[in-house]
Amino acid sequence: MDTASLTGKDLAAAINSDTAKRAAALADAGAAPTLALVVANDDSASTWYVNSLRRAAKKLGIECDRIDLGAYASAARIRSELTARSADPAVDAIMLQTPLPAGVTLDDVSSAIDARKDVDGVSPLSLGLLAAGLDGFVPATSEAVVELLVHHEIPLEGRTVTVVGRSNIVGKPLAQLLLAKNATVTVAHSRTADLAAATSAAEIVVAAAGRIGLVTGEHVNEGAIVIDVGTNESADGSIVGDVDAATVTGKAAGLSPVPGGVGPVTTALLMRHVVVAAENARG
Amino acid sequence: MDTASLTGKDLAAAINSDTAKRAAALADAGAAPTLALVVANDDSASTWYVNSLRRAAKKLGIECDRIDLGAYASAARIRSELTARSADPAVDAIMLQTPLPAGVTLDDVSSAIDARKDVDGVSPLSLGLLAAGLDGFVPATSEAVVELLVHHEIPLEGRTVTVVGRSNIVGKPLAQLLLAKNATVTVAHSRTADLAAATSAAEIVVAAAGRIGLVTGEHVNEGAIVIDVGTNESADGSIVGDVDAATVTGKAAGLSPVPGGVGPVTTALLMRHVVVAAENARG
Repeated sequence: MDTASLTGKDLAAAINSDTAKRAAALADAGAAPTLALVVANDDSASTWYVNSLRRAAKKLGIECDRIDLGAYASAARIRSELTARSADPAVDAIMLQTPLPAGVTLDDVSSAIDARKDVDGVSPLSLGLLAAGLDGFVPATSEAVVELLVHHEIPLEGRTVTVVGRSNIVGKPLAQLLLAKNATVTVAHSRTADLAAATSAAEIVVAAAGRIGLVTGEHVNEGAIVIDVGTNESADGSIVGDVDAATVTGKAAGLSPVPGGVGPVTTALLMRHVVVAAENARG
Repeated sequence: MDTASLTGKDLAAAINSDTAKRAAALADAGAAPTLALVVANDDSASTWYVNSLRRAAKKLGIECDRIDLGAYASAARIRSELTARSADPAVDAIMLQTPLPAGVTLDDVSSAIDARKDVDGVSPLSLGLLAAGLDGFVPATSEAVVELLVHHEIPLEGRTVTVVGRSNIVGKPLAQLLLAKNATVTVAHSRTADLAAATSAAEIVVAAAGRIGLVTGEHVNEGAIVIDVGTNESADGSIVGDVDAATVTGKAAGLSPVPGGVGPVTTALLMRHVVVAAENARG
């Protein structure tokens, strides 16, 4: 079977084109939308990602302030920074970059981000608004998976989807979004006894476990749709996904590439969230 | 196969015994724990349930104030009542009874309940704390399902569980709790294309759809565990579950009865939450 490449580049470009227009309108009306990017690590992959976000923001006319708290910042220091930026009317949007310093978890600090500025949807209130089906910012990666499927005209209503991974920022919010689209959703993870049984029962498989090559051709049904959310650093420094593309290609009906699949859509949605936060704040 | 009856009565009694002691200690130290039960309907099943909660509270030494706003209360009226009770130090815990008046949804009003008093875990913040794995009150019915399984020594780690129903107060929070116990979780619902496929693939099936007899013997595997969360009013006024006990009995390894299964555990957990809220408030 031919395996279609479910790229995210066209979709990202379309979102970005709209975002740039709205950012320009905000700038014309007073000030460009502003994202505060709070960093507390010296991780190389994180630095690479932060730089790519800053470049994306610049292209779209979004102001992006990097606030570096250092790799040894305490939870209290990070919370106080997030609280201050939440109260600052010059800041429209806040993103806290991971990883965090040793001993600090996202749960320790994320509630200090005002939900109205929480463009990556990480605070407990944002997660709860999603669980309740209310308006709020959804974690961009999980939203990107759904948008990518919709863009490629893959129906979700009544379909079986298995999500591999149960993180608070991808797997769990994605399950909520898929349920809202009327999919029948299974969440599998590292403690799942028979991963191949969970994935091969599904029409759509989303790999979001953060493990190189976890999902192979043996895990997916002939004709399934496979979305690869993984962005793992390989031994040679390149970014590779959770899916073993070599064995899935020829068996799946569609596979999203890494890079160039979910990634660009995630960045585009994050930037759209910044503009939405700014529009909301300015009435 | 013999089908064990997974009753909740012993477990509820054990929880209640502990709750009564803690309520007495609180009363000795100053004041009995107090639950404000806000009602805005004239529904007979709701009235029956409210009365049963008041009897349960009384037996345990918990003060239970019924605040009746009438079946035509506006969302604004309900919110203002919930806000006032949230601010009132004499109230330890708040429960908003459903159904709500026509045109008012739980989502319209639940955020007015302070999360520290939200003993049925319905506010967006409570749902988000659950999604993030943080401390907060969990919807009592979903917690009761997990506690009932644990009580009957049914392991969850690595097991496959299908939850039928995706409500914000049972199905969705239950999926979170089961994931936290390392189960592989599928959520099926009214739009699921092949319900029998989703349920018969699971070692444990939880029926929480609110439809009489939805889950029959044809839906469950030989030897499966079946938990019935349904509390539907039948034509003759009795309370019946979502499971067709006649066809499931003899095929399943265990089935929770209705009444006498999840129900008494739910009430016991609600009352325990009231005592916990009071203990927390009084330091």
